[in-house]
Amino acid sequence: MSTYGSLFRVTTYGESHCASVGAIIDGCPPGLQLTEQDIQVQLTRRRPGQSNLTTPRNEKDQVHIQSGIEHGVTLGTPIGLLVKNEDQRPHDYSETDLYPRPSHADYTYLQKYGIKASSGGGRSSARETIGRVAAGAIAERYLKQVYGVEIVAFVSSVGKIHLPFTTGPSSDDQDNDDIGDAVSPEFLKLISTITREEVDKQPTRCPHPETAERMTQATKDAQDSIGGTVTCVIRNVPGGLGEPVFDKFEAKLGHAMLSIPATKAFEIGSGFRGTEVPGSKHNDPFIARDGGKLGTGTNWSGGVQGGITNSEDIYFRIGFKSPATISQAQQTAQYDGTPGTLAARGRHDPCVVPRAVPIVEAMAAIVVMDQLLIQNARKTAASLLPPVTTLPPTMILPPGAK
Amino acid sequence: MSTYGSLFRVTTYGESHCASVGAIIDGCPPGLQLTEQDIQVQLTRRRPGQSNLTTPRNEKDQVHIQSGIEHGVTLGTPIGLLVKNEDQRPHDYSETDLYPRPSHADYTYLQKYGIKASSGGGRSSARETIGRVAAGAIAERYLKQVYGVEIVAFVSSVGKIHLPFTTGPSSDDQDNDDIGDAVSPEFLKLISTITREEVDKQPTRCPHPETAERMTQATKDAQDSIGGTVTCVIRNVPGGLGEPVFDKFEAKLGHAMLSIPATKAFEIGSGFRGTEVPGSKHNDPFIARDGGKLGTGTNWSGGVQGGITNSEDIYFRIGFKSPATISQAQQTAQYDGTPGTLAARGRHDPCVVPRAVPIVEAMAAIVVMDQLLIQNARKTAASLLPPVTTLPPTMILPPGAK
Amino acid sequence: MSTYGSLFRVTTYGESHCASVGAIIDGCPPGLQLTEQDIQVQLTRRRPGQSNLTTPRNEKDQVHIQSGIEHGVTLGTPIGLLVKNEDQRPHDYSETDLYPRPSHADYTYLQKYGIKASSGGGRSSARETIGRVAAGAIAERYLKQVYGVEIVAFVSSVGKIHLPFTTGPSSDDQDNDDIGDAVSPEFLKLISTITREEVDKQPTRCPHPETAERMTQATKDAQDSIGGTVTCVIRNVPGGLGEPVFDKFEAKLGHAMLSIPATKAFEIGSGFRGTEVPGSKHNDPFIARDGGKLGTGTNWSGGVQGGITNSEDIYFRIGFKSPATISQAQQTAQYDGTPGTLAARGRHDPCVVPRAVPIVEAMAAIVVMDQLLIQNARKTAASLLPPVTTLPPTMILPPGAK
Amino acid sequence: MSTYGSLFRVTTYGESHCASVGAIIDGCPPGLQLTEQDIQVQLTRRRPGQSNLTTPRNEKDQVHIQSGIEHGVTLGTPIGLLVKNEDQRPHDYSETDLYPRPSHADYTYLQKYGIKASSGGGRSSARETIGRVAAGAIAERYLKQVYGVEIVAFVSSVGKIHLPFTTGPSSDDQDNDDIGDAVSPEFLKLISTITREEVDKQPTRCPHPETAERMTQATKDAQDSIGGTVTCVIRNVPGGLGEPVFDKFEAKLGHAMLSIPATKAFEIGSGFRGTEVPGSKHNDPFIARDGGKLGTGTNWSGGVQGGITNSEDIYFRIGFKSPATISQAQQTAQYDGTPGTLAARGRHDPCVVPRAVPIVEAMAAIVVMDQLLIQNARKTAASLLPPVTTLPPTMILPPGAK
Repeated sequence: MSTYGSLFRVTTYGESHCASVGAIIDGCPPGLQLTEQDIQVQLTRRRPGQSNLTTPRNEKDQVHIQSGIEHGVTLGTPIGLLVKNEDQRPHDYSETDLYPRPSHADYTYLQKYGIKASSGGGRSSARETIGRVAAGAIAERYLKQVYGVEIVAFVSSVGKIHLPFTTGPSSDDQDNDDIGDAVSPEFLKLISTITREEVDKQPTRCPHPETAERMTQATKDAQDSIGGTVTCVIRNVPGGLGEPVFDKFEAKLGHAMLSIPATKAFEIGSGFRGTEVPGSKHNDPFIARDGGKLGTGTNWSGGVQGGITNSEDIYFRIGFKSPATISQAQQTAQYDGTPGTLAARGRHDPCVVPRAVPIVEAMAAIVVMDQLLIQNARKTAASLLPPVTTLPPTMILPPGAK
Repeated sequence: MSTYGSLFRVTTYGESHCASVGAIIDGCPPGLQLTEQDIQVQLTRRRPGQSNLTTPRNEKDQVHIQSGIEHGVTLGTPIGLLVKNEDQRPHDYSETDLYPRPSHADYTYLQKYGIKASSGGGRSSARETIGRVAAGAIAERYLKQVYGVEIVAFVSSVGKIHLPFTTGPSSDDQDNDDIGDAVSPEFLKLISTITREEVDKQPTRCPHPETAERMTQATKDAQDSIGGTVTCVIRNVPGGLGEPVFDKFEAKLGHAMLSIPATKAFEIGSGFRGTEVPGSKHNDPFIARDGGKLGTGTNWSGGVQGGITNSEDIYFRIGFKSPATISQAQQTAQYDGTPGTLAARGRHDPCVVPRAVPIVEAMAAIVVMDQLLIQNARKTAASLLPPVTTLPPTMILPPGAK
Repeated sequence: MSTYGSLFRVTTYGESHCASVGAIIDGCPPGLQLTEQDIQVQLTRRRPGQSNLTTPRNEKDQVHIQSGIEHGVTLGTPIGLLVKNEDQRPHDYSETDLYPRPSHADYTYLQKYGIKASSGGGRSSARETIGRVAAGAIAERYLKQVYGVEIVAFVSSVGKIHLPFTTGPSSDDQDNDDIGDAVSPEFLKLISTITREEVDKQPTRCPHPETAERMTQATKDAQDSIGGTVTCVIRNVPGGLGEPVFDKFEAKLGHAMLSIPATKAFEIGSGFRGTEVPGSKHNDPFIARDGGKLGTGTNWSGGVQGGITNSEDIYFRIGFKSPATISQAQQTAQYDGTPGTLAARGRHDPCVVPRAVPIVEAMAAIVVMDQLLIQNARKTAASLLPPVTTLPPTMILPPGAK
Repeated sequence: MSTYGSLFRVTTYGESHCASVGAIIDGCPPGLQLTEQDIQVQLTRRRPGQSNLTTPRNEKDQVHIQSGIEHGVTLGTPIGLLVKNEDQRPHDYSETDLYPRPSHADYTYLQKYGIKASSGGGRSSARETIGRVAAGAIAERYLKQVYGVEIVAFVSSVGKIHLPFTTGPSSDDQDNDDIGDAVSPEFLKLISTITREEVDKQPTRCPHPETAERMTQATKDAQDSIGGTVTCVIRNVPGGLGEPVFDKFEAKLGHAMLSIPATKAFEIGSGFRGTEVPGSKHNDPFIARDGGKLGTGTNWSGGVQGGITNSEDIYFRIGFKSPATISQAQQTAQYDGTPGTLAARGRHDPCVVPRAVPIVEAMAAIVVMDQLLIQNARKTAASLLPPVTTLPPTMILPPGAK
């Protein structure tokens, strides 16, 4: 369905060529100061044509808040918002409509609904993500203000061009006895310090100028398309989030990320590479932090252990396939099975990964917000009970730990 | 929470040392013939000590159906089931209890609940998966009987030892201009034919004898532990499953897989490797199959496009980290921050990936079953409407397509 | 939360003085022909000032469909819709704002959110029901087209003036040994034949001209207010709807009705009066209908038995309290406890029950639609299983029954 | 489905003749001291044969906790529990099986599932309520310990015999200009003081000895059956519970109550009678309570305004129809339509209302607990935001109010 979340709940609507796309955000805490501009910032970041970020403020995709806010403060009631579509005419018929576009959603939407929007995949349109980005901006504003949560995503690869030091040696180099580091110190430093400002300095949103330049060169072929990966870090998330057993934090996060169009892969912490590292190295030993709080000396876990956040940085990576729309001709078949050749018309973005960055951030914010509210409910309820004195001391959080 | 699914709904309970672990499965279609033995088969496959599969039938972990079935037929009402725990005494206190075990759930459970089971991570226990496996066996029985759905998981890597031909050249070989195949023909042949019988021939459940042998050697170090990956294929799933936009098929599948203990990564179809393949190659062209039905000539998509199944084989891979429990001493800290050394007592399984195989299959079955029921509701409702004759023909599933 | 339903899901937003009120309807079957006018009809019926129904078409509360429909046909994707608010300025401050209005939601909204809309009770505004009515109109259109479902609500009492023959003798007449009929033949005839056209002939929407006239007289006192009851019948609902055990049909229906503003009571079938009737009379014996289908000779059950519909007419009654806004002065207290006198300004509707009629119909349609989709999922799934031949014949629906 | 609640979630299983009935309670706050005996008390109160409450402790329906508790303290993880069925053999076939029992669930279960338990209505069995009562006992224990919540239900009518002063003059006495009190002072006094001990003094659980005696006489006819009403009060519930708009407190409460077998009616506060009382009288004026807290001088609202609790006593009434099982012969039809006569065998309880008392209390506790956790989540989240200083003072809860 088009709803995500249980206590912070986002419901979206809209196709490419209908009147508007929008969302209802239910469960935002009351008393949060919020303006349309707070939301607009991230919406503008997801607009096409971000390559020159010094252009005048983009007037498109303006968000209109419908409800839930008065005098710039949230009421706790549902926040309705919408962004008008510019092109509201249904798509004109052409011969290409005889073809389901390869690796698009045309055919599967027909299998699912028996009908599809004239423009193609309907809700698989990139415009659908506008509602997510808006909702995420609201969640993020709360999280930042109350917990200092920082969420920063960036492009970590385009095609075969990878940000260096994001991963260790190849998993395929099977004769190499040196297992290497799945998580390098440079990478950990990067995720602990990176900001959105730095990310946006590069049109490709890869925070490593040389790699960014190589990425720009690699995506100049307008006839073809290429995929990539986005890495995201969430800092300052309180420990204790994530619901055993089916709604572990990484399960909810993976769910949210894999609901973004064109995603095919998700990993948290050391991810696939970590599977090759023995426990003696992969385990994150505990250390005492300032103030007596326990932390972990390494962070192969990516901030989540047993499905529950442990206050360390949460980092994860998402794989986006190459866009399905390409200008060169493709051999394929029509709906009725007739073989033929299909070529997309018009201009197409050969690489969408940079635009995915604010969408990833938005979904991350929504997941954290929802889990936080659920955990707050439990924690508040438990805190009101009289202390239990009859248990073995190791069953209770000791005074020294927090 | 401990519930998964909307129309096929699984709720589980149980820790390591309580009276029993169990589940309530709600929403099983009525009229399905089902015995305890149908469930027991998969429960036995997840038992420890599977390495010698010729040993007499294991009498442990016997499932007891409580309700929802009469005369061997499901009533459509909730199926309650339980498996008794053998060791029901709370864990004895020892000095090791002063330490949160590194990369275990001891510490995060305390952060979450302020209390934890004496035995450690409570619901993060591997015994929690018994309820999943039982529920999955029920879902699978329905799916097999009605749709011929086949779900087979197998071990595709242990540490750095990978089943050959599962993936293409290294993503790190950045100077190699040849992008290669993320999806090799050998791999596609394997997933289209593999059976559970073949998988179980090897103690490691890797269906490639030479690789399996290398895996066995690699996991003989009882002092350390190692992770691995499981690959799973689901064959004969009808097209049209998966709910845009937040509950795309791969999002639900990823959620389910990442809720299995020790998982850190998930990819579907070409996954992370596919991000390096240009659209001109990665797109799956349509072809006419026997009977006029459309199929795709390649299957980089992994059976899902736009978040909706397209009737092709669904295949995906899950990364499991190395087990946190190791015998060798680890430098870490006590709950109160005191540094010290911790070593696990007793025997521990250095590699749990083979035992994860039936758990992966179970979660896959649960996801397909739930999505199928939701899509059935829509499809039945739509099929009862009078045909629409006023739409452009390309908006409606044409007679030639199915 | 502001969402109702599981497969047919309605989410609403909007207060009195924000930009618009609206809804997202998710799960509408694809292929349904639907126009704004289909929705507008019921929206217009809920407008204030319905007393002279011969006035020119009301131009207010025009619905604007945002998505989910192309060429007048539903796509199966979320239908976004909105109705603009005319008065979008926050309410001006006045001395009356020092008072929480008695039996309004001002005070409880503050207790809940710590903040409230300047206009008062925020989402408790009657305008919130616009989204429900619109969603209900969509559900109803489907139900009517496919199953011939007819939903008709009418005013059965205003204050002490009751439609005759709706109920039997007083429950308080405790010395009367004659228990009487809770369900009179006249009443059953009324609910089996009543139409919306007949209901709308009377400004009070009571389909009994004499009683309607008395009701009109009784509500002329503009200084005070009065409550009433609405009775609703749903005809031609298929048997088998309603989910044991917590989501029995009457439980879902009661939930939906008691979520309408100002409701305080709900009863189905013989209701409270039926509690006084012995089982020998209250039981509905089975009879064979035309075509061999079983029916019940009486219908004290109100079309629901064991929480599941049985194909008979479903009828129920809802009690609405008198509106809290009255012109006469009330002794009460300010937020800070200072005693004082409060009188509402402006014109107020002394009796809102007639306007509640389309809202009741809408919620009824939404409940039936959602339950129908859930039951369709089960029924379709069960129908695909091979027939079971090993059961005692009385455990299976026999060929003669349907 | 068989699950109730969102944060405090109860899932039940079990029919009459299966191995056991049970429940999983998920979301219980960690750190609550809880034993089987705490649960057993209410289970024993729902047992048949309560008429002589001085009999030795009933050894039947013993609850067995499976998980979620160690050393008598809840872990915050799911609490599994079960109660064994004594008669686990499927029902023997007899000629009466040819008949769907009138006003039972036999026929509707067949319509729904196409199959039914041999014993009849399957989950409509009274034994299904065991899981509810157990779950309610857990919720109640928390609520009592932390908030001092008191929940007391009692029988307010059996057939035509009503507890005096529960309601005002007849609504049917339409010529009587005196509208009377729907809520009498005697009634309000009763609900503010009644305890379970007082209720249990009477076998009929009507806390008015004379009326109780009349009820006992009235239910002596073992050949027939009779219904009745249960009234329940919940004291000390914090204000602010209930979720606008679809999950208003009374909507959730009504849902829960109408899910109890044999219920046909629900009303809160002044209920149906209140619809006859003008606003000038029905409105509950505010008064200052000790400590400056606002309260209401009257309580026609029944503790809920705008769908949100206001800290006053919550009281409501539920109507139970007469039991469908009666000994006298009934003219009815077989499944295949053949007319015939059916008479129940064995002993049957002619009036089940006294046994419904603990079930009503349990469902009330579950509803309050779930709403409380949801509201706690919001309240905690809002409390962490910096205070808003830019709003008109009447939009914010003033310091004087609480």
